[in-house]
Amino acid sequence: MTRFSSSVAELRSSEIRDLMSLATSPDMISFAGGMPGNELFPLNKIDKILNSLCEKEKQVALQYGPTTGLPTLLESLSEWLEKKGLPVKSNKLIITTGSLQAINILAKAFLDPGDSVLVETPSFIGALSAFRSYQANLVTVPLNGDGMDIKLLKDRINSSSVKPKFLYYSPNFHNPAGIVYSEEVKKEMIDVLRNQEIPIIEDDVYSDLYFFEEDRPKMKLIKSMDPEGIDVCFTGSFSKILGPGLRLGWMLVPDNIYQKCELIKQSIDACSPSISQVVADKFIREGHIDAYISEVREEYKKRGLAMIDTLEKCLPESVSFEKPRGGFYTWLQLPEGCDATDVLKKSIEKGVVFVTGKTFDPDGIKNDHIRVSFCNTDVETIKKGVPVIAEAIRVIMNLA
Amino acid sequence: MTRFSSSVAELRSSEIRDLMSLATSPDMISFAGGMPGNELFPLNKIDKILNSLCEKEKQVALQYGPTTGLPTLLESLSEWLEKKGLPVKSNKLIITTGSLQAINILAKAFLDPGDSVLVETPSFIGALSAFRSYQANLVTVPLNGDGMDIKLLKDRINSSSVKPKFLYYSPNFHNPAGIVYSEEVKKEMIDVLRNQEIPIIEDDVYSDLYFFEEDRPKMKLIKSMDPEGIDVCFTGSFSKILGPGLRLGWMLVPDNIYQKCELIKQSIDACSPSISQVVADKFIREGHIDAYISEVREEYKKRGLAMIDTLEKCLPESVSFEKPRGGFYTWLQLPEGCDATDVLKKSIEKGVVFVTGKTFDPDGIKNDHIRVSFCNTDVETIKKGVPVIAEAIRVIMNLA
Repeated sequence: MTRFSSSVAELRSSEIRDLMSLATSPDMISFAGGMPGNELFPLNKIDKILNSLCEKEKQVALQYGPTTGLPTLLESLSEWLEKKGLPVKSNKLIITTGSLQAINILAKAFLDPGDSVLVETPSFIGALSAFRSYQANLVTVPLNGDGMDIKLLKDRINSSSVKPKFLYYSPNFHNPAGIVYSEEVKKEMIDVLRNQEIPIIEDDVYSDLYFFEEDRPKMKLIKSMDPEGIDVCFTGSFSKILGPGLRLGWMLVPDNIYQKCELIKQSIDACSPSISQVVADKFIREGHIDAYISEVREEYKKRGLAMIDTLEKCLPESVSFEKPRGGFYTWLQLPEGCDATDVLKKSIEKGVVFVTGKTFDPDGIKNDHIRVSFCNTDVETIKKGVPVIAEAIRVIMNLA
Repeated sequence: MTRFSSSVAELRSSEIRDLMSLATSPDMISFAGGMPGNELFPLNKIDKILNSLCEKEKQVALQYGPTTGLPTLLESLSEWLEKKGLPVKSNKLIITTGSLQAINILAKAFLDPGDSVLVETPSFIGALSAFRSYQANLVTVPLNGDGMDIKLLKDRINSSSVKPKFLYYSPNFHNPAGIVYSEEVKKEMIDVLRNQEIPIIEDDVYSDLYFFEEDRPKMKLIKSMDPEGIDVCFTGSFSKILGPGLRLGWMLVPDNIYQKCELIKQSIDACSPSISQVVADKFIREGHIDAYISEVREEYKKRGLAMIDTLEKCLPESVSFEKPRGGFYTWLQLPEGCDATDVLKKSIEKGVVFVTGKTFDPDGIKNDHIRVSFCNTDVETIKKGVPVIAEAIRVIMNLA
């Protein structure tokens, strides 16, 4: 008998994972993943970067680096984040092995077994897994179209016998819900959390991928508002704006939290991949990043709008959804009595895969939504695949 | 007040870390790090690999991969490990973000706060940090010249009121002690641990770097002996045989442990860097790895032998050390009453840095040794730097 730790018991294999082998099979149309389109990666620019490295830079790429990140990338990334309005001077930056690692490290910094954390429902599965792995008690706050339900947020905080250790949320083009937080909701969150000793983990990996310039003002981050009386831990990533295979993310946090997180990272993987850091640094320094983001933003917009258009044309009236205005995802509310797993099974029979709602439910139960991503399928494929999902819903609901 | 988790309190900044800025200053001679020589990296081969990738391979390098590793690297690495005698068919392989991550994941799989683990003293600082981060109680077994003290290992197990959760050890060219375990000690370890429900974490990252062909038979791993009645979790790394900047290691473990570790890794960083995995896979497949290892083995042997020679010429008689027969390190026992930190301070004044013994002591106290590494300094620099250390000891001991 192997004697595992009790924290491991909290971890479970998700439906999404069991589906990933199907989702990557060449015969399947996959709306399941949250990966950038393969054909959108800036291969030529990265080739040029790799071929332009001098001997010393190549050595740096293969050597250990400092735990918090290569100084050159910390510098170029700081400058880039500062231009976006983030308070880099009054905070400290750590390069992490993807933003999931940043979230995981923060969870470890704050959580003892049994501690409560405030999470949205639905929420990003990676963060939920990280919190579960530290045996957190997930206290859920439902999402509306403009952000978390503030009344319920207050209720949750007031009705808890012990104070939650932090609030985790995602402001822009939410995974899976696709929504953007309104400025009003963010201000109310600040009011509720001020001087409560409940830090915010603000996870923002999609905000560069907006479809409409006019949305930008309302997308302002809580970290950028730099509110008094709240520790805001901002996490971000190169995964959606350069390539997830580099495994590079970051956290921007107050100094006292930085000190702890550095020690934790030292005990996890010593440092993030240097080879990736050298590439990402040059990608920023040589001015490619903003041009590249503009380019993919246009392509994801085409896909997102094609997704909306196709859904509107073929979904039964009883299915509703918030139209995405950026990011990677649409989140469909199924008709009453329609179970997402039934729809998924029926769709898979016809060669289309996506992710069921309960995957994103912190309680792992609620299954009346499906997440249909449009990031890794071109417009033609979207037009071909979406009707299969619509048909599956009709069959399950006897609407055919 | 930020409310941190209790596990974070166990983590501390180490002397070695505070010294690293000194150690990398160009004016300093550094015997401190455990990094490969910068000038030894196979830059040309990696350039060729990067330039030979087809479009699809480049896309794979930038995309998310499976949590347990890219299938092509799992295949090539399995084959390479099998040739070394490891039981890859009856176990499962996971690619990790460095071997420290493998050790960290295994610690998380086994440890609840307060659990005991058996560790060598001295021991690898990275592993100790990982175990401390899970609030483990470190139960130490002293090292002799041929491996851990078996009598004391038995005592520790028998005198514990609760059974230790695992034993962590490093068989070949130990960091920091430099020793190689004898076959006899490994067999006795197997006898002691059989059917005890105490898994072994066998951490082996230096064994390719032997100086003498004749040592190879005795270096056989416990994992390769495949003993009945013990779960052996083997961890290894590309860091010393290709480049630590890739951040790639692995674990080879029984299936039930693999299942848990996969879930843990999913919650830590989702997958290891794909770009590094593509490079490492080609490095193995194109047959570079064994040729490259032979090359650096010769260079490290030159450095190691120069280190022994210089130490023998200039050390006071009252300092003793085990002559290294491979790996990266020499481990000097200071004369009675001589504190390693005093020697270090004196050496730094003259421009030479190394690591003090207490860094590697699980209790963080014993400071009668110093670790002098020869991996990242050429022969000339060794001849120049070692006398500075010898002189510092003389000054401290009033032997001048």
